Amino acid sequence: MEFINIANQGVKTLSPYQAGKPIEELERELGISNIIKLASNENPFGLPESAKVAISRQLDELTRYPDANGFELKAAIAKKFAIDPNQITLGNGSNDLLELFAHTFASDEDEIIYSQYAFIVYPLVTKAINAVAREIPAKNWGHDLAGFLAAINSKTKLIYIANPNNPTGNFLTHQQIADFLVEVPEHVLVVLDEAYTEFTPQDQRVDAYALLKKHRNLILCRTFSKAYGLAGLRIGYAVSDPSIADLLNRVRQPFNCNSLALAAAVAVLNDDTFVEKVAKNNRTEMQRYEQFCLAQRLEFIPSQGNFITIDFKQPALPIYQALLHEGVIVRPIAGYGMPNHLRISIGLPEENDMFFTALVKVLSKNK
Amino acid sequence: MEFINIANQGVKTLSPYQAGKPIEELERELGISNIIKLASNENPFGLPESAKVAISRQLDELTRYPDANGFELKAAIAKKFAIDPNQITLGNGSNDLLELFAHTFASDEDEIIYSQYAFIVYPLVTKAINAVAREIPAKNWGHDLAGFLAAINSKTKLIYIANPNNPTGNFLTHQQIADFLVEVPEHVLVVLDEAYTEFTPQDQRVDAYALLKKHRNLILCRTFSKAYGLAGLRIGYAVSDPSIADLLNRVRQPFNCNSLALAAAVAVLNDDTFVEKVAKNNRTEMQRYEQFCLAQRLEFIPSQGNFITIDFKQPALPIYQALLHEGVIVRPIAGYGMPNHLRISIGLPEENDMFFTALVKVLSKNK
Repeated sequence: MEFINIANQGVKTLSPYQAGKPIEELERELGISNIIKLASNENPFGLPESAKVAISRQLDELTRYPDANGFELKAAIAKKFAIDPNQITLGNGSNDLLELFAHTFASDEDEIIYSQYAFIVYPLVTKAINAVAREIPAKNWGHDLAGFLAAINSKTKLIYIANPNNPTGNFLTHQQIADFLVEVPEHVLVVLDEAYTEFTPQDQRVDAYALLKKHRNLILCRTFSKAYGLAGLRIGYAVSDPSIADLLNRVRQPFNCNSLALAAAVAVLNDDTFVEKVAKNNRTEMQRYEQFCLAQRLEFIPSQGNFITIDFKQPALPIYQALLHEGVIVRPIAGYGMPNHLRISIGLPEENDMFFTALVKVLSKNK
Repeated sequence: MEFINIANQGVKTLSPYQAGKPIEELERELGISNIIKLASNENPFGLPESAKVAISRQLDELTRYPDANGFELKAAIAKKFAIDPNQITLGNGSNDLLELFAHTFASDEDEIIYSQYAFIVYPLVTKAINAVAREIPAKNWGHDLAGFLAAINSKTKLIYIANPNNPTGNFLTHQQIADFLVEVPEHVLVVLDEAYTEFTPQDQRVDAYALLKKHRNLILCRTFSKAYGLAGLRIGYAVSDPSIADLLNRVRQPFNCNSLALAAAVAVLNDDTFVEKVAKNNRTEMQRYEQFCLAQRLEFIPSQGNFITIDFKQPALPIYQALLHEGVIVRPIAGYGMPNHLRISIGLPEENDMFFTALVKVLSKNK
């Protein structure tokens, strides 16, 4: 008996998600230390004090189940963004929500639209539920929204838009998204995945909350894993029409969000000092990466995220592997169909210096 | 546009899971304090020191993603139970795993078997994926395994067995499960959900690991939420044939388990002192509940879990509500088709005293 034969159709061809290599794993494999990881678009600062305090207050309560309704976090999000708590669905990271949208609204007779080179969870989820994937060829590594519109038909259920997009860093403006939404029929749900929005300067960001007021079929997806620094705790949220949130909350696992994530998220949501420090470091260091690439004559995709994707014009895997031996973990993205690129997360200044030095060394050996 | 019309078929009739009322919610609603919660089969002791230490060591790392492969926790589980790490799938609580089994192996053409009065997540998951539910009428509130066997056909994909069962506390012996498994065809996956096994005396427990060696279609499901006291952190695990675990791990969200849950689980897994303290309190206090029920002429279902289910022979909701006003939260289980029963989680001695006093008061007023 081969159990794969009784698995669901879409599961049979599913490859597992390739996470960034953990530091401990590299330590085990190569027996080296002083490793830096610029592989998973993580926040390079340590957990803010506000989150630590919130966590320490909850420790004794951990033998209790989390609040299944996330009352306090929903109240805090609702207050901050002037929305109603019943518009909110909480997720075990935004990955949980991206999957939840599909489990709630799409099945194997439906079509799901997303872009080539877009966040890999979209095709993984589509495959897992055996829906029809409509992957729209990218334009300059980014979303071709006219192509999206042309692909919509009566079977289209979901559209995933990552903005800024991971792993390319491409960005769509408020006006581009607004113009797109006007053309999308209301039976098609549009997921606007803004995992990286806090890294875009405030005056350039999409005003998703304004768009939500105009388009009932829009679902906004946000995470605490990036600018807010809670990747290890797993917490994200979706904002939508209350009737959509009601359906999502029926399908959601009742205790999908753990107690410490709920408490820490309330704390960091209003920790403007921390988020501003993170965004400022990102802006400054991104400029250094761009200058470094220009100086080294390396082509990169201009990025609005906390990462930069470099085109080495040759297979990037050997460069990735050589960097590992220098104690620097970055991210190969051949799985995205970008075998010549590596994605580097923006770290602290000293981490970025280490990367610059290591890459120069690796590339000079490579000549 | 009513978005429910574009939701998946099974989702349309799905009711949200009714969690036990949180203490804070009752405080908000009634403006009372000194509330005790015996509603969610939670561990009544505070978080053990071993888990606190493990958590505090991880705090600075929380801006990093969790280890997607759960290397250390899998190694610890494998060592403790003499299995291979590649037999293990980690879940965001066992709820996550119960859902994962269905998402991986069952679709709307398949049948799923479970018992009447069994853990409510089984019918919720079945409905969510729009599979055919074969709910087998209970015998004395417990699983009728002969009825399970009679219901198996070529469309059967999954069987869920809760042992001990929640919310009834019923227990199937090792021999009953062993005899059952011999009769189940290999294309049918049997999920043995042992969330409460640590509350059963060691010499009476099912030896699931021995059964796994004989039956490749058996999937064992365990949780850290009960005896191990990590309900608020969300962590559970499944043990199966490696080829089944491989499929489950493809469908699993890569970061479904948070970093603190992974670290705390490693710590408590080997904290025998804590688990023995918890189990001992449960044994002693369960006897007090049984004596109380006998003295009060209240009928109860003998339970191998950390809870006891009382039959009030009248609608139990008014009793539940009257207990709330006494500051005692227990669990109505009308949603399980047991409107005359309440489920009470075994607490600390002083909490149980409070419950006994409150119930006597409520019942005397009720006469």
